[in-house]
Amino acid sequence: MGTISVSRSVSFETDPGRYRHWKLAIDGEVATLSMDVQEDGGLSPDYRLKLNSYDLGVDIELADAVQRLRFEHPEVRAVVVTSMKERVFCAGANIFMLRGSTHAWKVNFCKFTNETRLAMEDASAHSGLKFLAALNGTCAGGGYELALACDEILLVDDGNSAVSLPETPLLGVLPGTGGLTRVVDKRKVRRDLADVFCTVAEGVKGKRAVEWRLVDAVVAKSQFREAVETRARELAARSDRPGAGPGITLGPLQPSVTDREIRYSAVTVALDRDRRVAELTVRGPEAPLPATPEAVLQAGDQFWPLRAFRELDDALLRLRVNEPAIGVIDIRTEGDPAAVMAADAVLLAHRDHWLVRETIHFIKRALKRLDLTARSLFALIEPGSCFAGTLFELALACDRSYMLDDPERPTSIQLSGMNAGVLPMSSGLSRLQVRFLGEPSRAGEALAHEGPFEAQDALEAGLVSFAPDEIDWDDEVRLAVEERTSLSPDALTGMEANLRFAGPETLETKIFGRLTAWQNWIFQRPNAVGEKGALTSYGSAQRPEFDWGRT
Amino acid sequence: MGTISVSRSVSFETDPGRYRHWKLAIDGEVATLSMDVQEDGGLSPDYRLKLNSYDLGVDIELADAVQRLRFEHPEVRAVVVTSMKERVFCAGANIFMLRGSTHAWKVNFCKFTNETRLAMEDASAHSGLKFLAALNGTCAGGGYELALACDEILLVDDGNSAVSLPETPLLGVLPGTGGLTRVVDKRKVRRDLADVFCTVAEGVKGKRAVEWRLVDAVVAKSQFREAVETRARELAARSDRPGAGPGITLGPLQPSVTDREIRYSAVTVALDRDRRVAELTVRGPEAPLPATPEAVLQAGDQFWPLRAFRELDDALLRLRVNEPAIGVIDIRTEGDPAAVMAADAVLLAHRDHWLVRETIHFIKRALKRLDLTARSLFALIEPGSCFAGTLFELALACDRSYMLDDPERPTSIQLSGMNAGVLPMSSGLSRLQVRFLGEPSRAGEALAHEGPFEAQDALEAGLVSFAPDEIDWDDEVRLAVEERTSLSPDALTGMEANLRFAGPETLETKIFGRLTAWQNWIFQRPNAVGEKGALTSYGSAQRPEFDWGRT
Repeated sequence: MGTISVSRSVSFETDPGRYRHWKLAIDGEVATLSMDVQEDGGLSPDYRLKLNSYDLGVDIELADAVQRLRFEHPEVRAVVVTSMKERVFCAGANIFMLRGSTHAWKVNFCKFTNETRLAMEDASAHSGLKFLAALNGTCAGGGYELALACDEILLVDDGNSAVSLPETPLLGVLPGTGGLTRVVDKRKVRRDLADVFCTVAEGVKGKRAVEWRLVDAVVAKSQFREAVETRARELAARSDRPGAGPGITLGPLQPSVTDREIRYSAVTVALDRDRRVAELTVRGPEAPLPATPEAVLQAGDQFWPLRAFRELDDALLRLRVNEPAIGVIDIRTEGDPAAVMAADAVLLAHRDHWLVRETIHFIKRALKRLDLTARSLFALIEPGSCFAGTLFELALACDRSYMLDDPERPTSIQLSGMNAGVLPMSSGLSRLQVRFLGEPSRAGEALAHEGPFEAQDALEAGLVSFAPDEIDWDDEVRLAVEERTSLSPDALTGMEANLRFAGPETLETKIFGRLTAWQNWIFQRPNAVGEKGALTSYGSAQRPEFDWGRT
Repeated sequence: MGTISVSRSVSFETDPGRYRHWKLAIDGEVATLSMDVQEDGGLSPDYRLKLNSYDLGVDIELADAVQRLRFEHPEVRAVVVTSMKERVFCAGANIFMLRGSTHAWKVNFCKFTNETRLAMEDASAHSGLKFLAALNGTCAGGGYELALACDEILLVDDGNSAVSLPETPLLGVLPGTGGLTRVVDKRKVRRDLADVFCTVAEGVKGKRAVEWRLVDAVVAKSQFREAVETRARELAARSDRPGAGPGITLGPLQPSVTDREIRYSAVTVALDRDRRVAELTVRGPEAPLPATPEAVLQAGDQFWPLRAFRELDDALLRLRVNEPAIGVIDIRTEGDPAAVMAADAVLLAHRDHWLVRETIHFIKRALKRLDLTARSLFALIEPGSCFAGTLFELALACDRSYMLDDPERPTSIQLSGMNAGVLPMSSGLSRLQVRFLGEPSRAGEALAHEGPFEAQDALEAGLVSFAPDEIDWDDEVRLAVEERTSLSPDALTGMEANLRFAGPETLETKIFGRLTAWQNWIFQRPNAVGEKGALTSYGSAQRPEFDWGRT
């Protein structure tokens, strides 16, 4: 295990001009996203991406394409997801990549692919971007999981092409990119049929695939192209997208990256590897924000809320994959709280405008990425900070928050309408609601409070964890971080994955809680990854040997 | 790991006369359950149960006591859970036991302790048996998890006694017997305070424990006894229990156990270890059932529904712990469907009677135990079977069902009101609702159907998975079982834990899904169980050494 070499620093930035594995074609209100994975285009030369199998690099392009459709192509209302390979839609995650990857890489890979598929569903639910999986050939494992993330699935009826989740029978692992959950919870396949489906390596095709709710329709090969076109137009007709451009361009983020720092325009991450701490700082708006939708459009990707959260999102991805030994992220803000409140006022006033809507949903997704980042998160609220409104969500997402209580250097936090449910967690609740599950009225009281909270008021209102004075501040914060980084990284990951998700579960939280947790367990088990495990043996002459004890 | 020797066959049967670790005392409507763990009374001589720490044997007694309070003591309305040790309530699960146990043992131990604590909550919710945790001293880890399962928690204020969940800081594992989930989802402790609490080994005491919602009250040592008495009487006053006896006696099950078979009066388990299959058969009532509450009372533990499901429950526990290599349980029934329907009619007609109510809730819990049993479950519906009403829940709980379609030997299934929500799964939904998540109207249609279903009708109604004819039956069933037992046991455990729990999540399903799955992952991680892991190092001179990579 862990024999594959990937260059230290993975970048999550790309653009259609650089795609190697996908073609994005736009024809009026229908876009087509075609998979054509280059065998030698993997992130590592140690495996070949045959049969449209994918690795993280392929999925980074998919995530980018979905993102750009939202911001750059507001005229698009339906997206056909298909393949340019003959008789093959997608063979799923590349097994040789999985087999050779470290445990941490597998876990991060699955997390990102899950986030990408959920982003497609978010685009459908909130942007009116409807996805049609046009399965022109064999669709296995992660390929079918990609189809499951679409609104509808059309399968070619050529006597051969099937949908399948062969992970359990062939690899001894789960279809963990949402597969099991989406089969029974999204498509609501009957659980006994799902059980059969998930244990039959060859999958299900034809009429039975429709009867079992695995696909929405099967279409003869000769009529497939036309059926896809027709259905895509019908899906487009259901969409509430604005229907006209222009979109904005998502320019490159171009952070300056050194060994000690990742620096963007509004976000800086300083890496202290000796202490295993990252100091992440988000800077508030430095100039007055555009106040009308037209001006927001003109600002485009430089509109501060979009710019800052794109940078935050990218920074989190880099930290996850490139800096595994960082245990604690200290989150700070810098700037004028009034400027953040003004930004929130613009977002709230124009939230029906398509670009503002997209920006808000982007912020929501970036904050969910933060919730799902397996590092301890401490908010440090100090003089000169701007934990107001949207930026206060950062503090609410943290495992703890420390706010300096120094009458000489007053520090404040502030809530806005953005804290009142506009940026829900995966559970559907706002972070304020989750914080006050035990005393629901306090969320409303905090939102009703006029103006900023100083430290003691914030503490009493339950909005921060601790408010040390200036004498205690340095020691208290230092000790808290030192203690945290001394604890078992795995126990912390498990603890945070439970405490952060208090309250109701949804399809989304089930994927990251129930499904992913079981998959991570299996990814540690000798029956999958041991010398004679099924994942290790796949594609070799060796047959897997199992320890038959059921756990 | 796995160095502890436990005799092959663990029995889950006990009674108060045989308890070594608990004292059950009853004073009118208040019972007191006092923990007094015998250090040398563990299931294995390889560890000593100091400071009221516990192993599976201690928990088997607790589960038995809670069960008997429901059936044998209907006059009891409140239960004080306390300790007979000076200054110590309970130190939690025994670390040396955990450290020396196999992975499978740890997992089964945690599952049983979780089921026991949920059974306490079930008794509170459905039997009016209110639990008061009277923490007369230090209460750590599993000790606090036991307290969390109670309705209220009183902590002595002696300047020393604290509640704590020190698993993360001391052992590198989670408080996995519901701990994390109950802290934020049941007691609704603010998540940042929960984060602090779960990382501070010494725990929280006094006023802060109340402010953080960790306990309901702290009471000075001198007033503790009186406060407990007062509060217990108040809790009893809230109860809707019948308030008078007599109860019934739960006699010993006394199965005949051989190397190949466990045989009870209404349940038989035949073990085919070569094929790794258990053939579990439940026999329907053989004589007319009592039809009035008085007659049910007189029948006592011999009342067929109670007797059959007590036997099933015991059989499942034995299979889990004593027969780890069994991969598939084939579930059959034998008897007259009309007799089962008649039994259901008695249960439904008298469900307001306390004993009938207890019996129904017991059946519900036994079926949940089946849902949570990590073995593949196949229902085999053949001539002479009685998969009707309550017994049809067995088929609904299975991963698949096969029903013989042979006009020469007609076989039928039948639904009753017991399938209509009386026996909900942990998610709160009936098994029929979960089966038909995608087509909710079919559940109602099936329930509205008059009389039995023969094979083709059952198949069309979606109530069974397959209905092979007599020519195909043998091969199809044999192949299905052979295929199943050839798959990775771990992948199947993960798959079944996802597919069986389609639909909503509850505190209960979160404990077994999210929390347990993460704990099982951690139980595999070198940072916990490796040579230098925290669990391995605990109590030795060695300090744990961690791989600092966050996953």
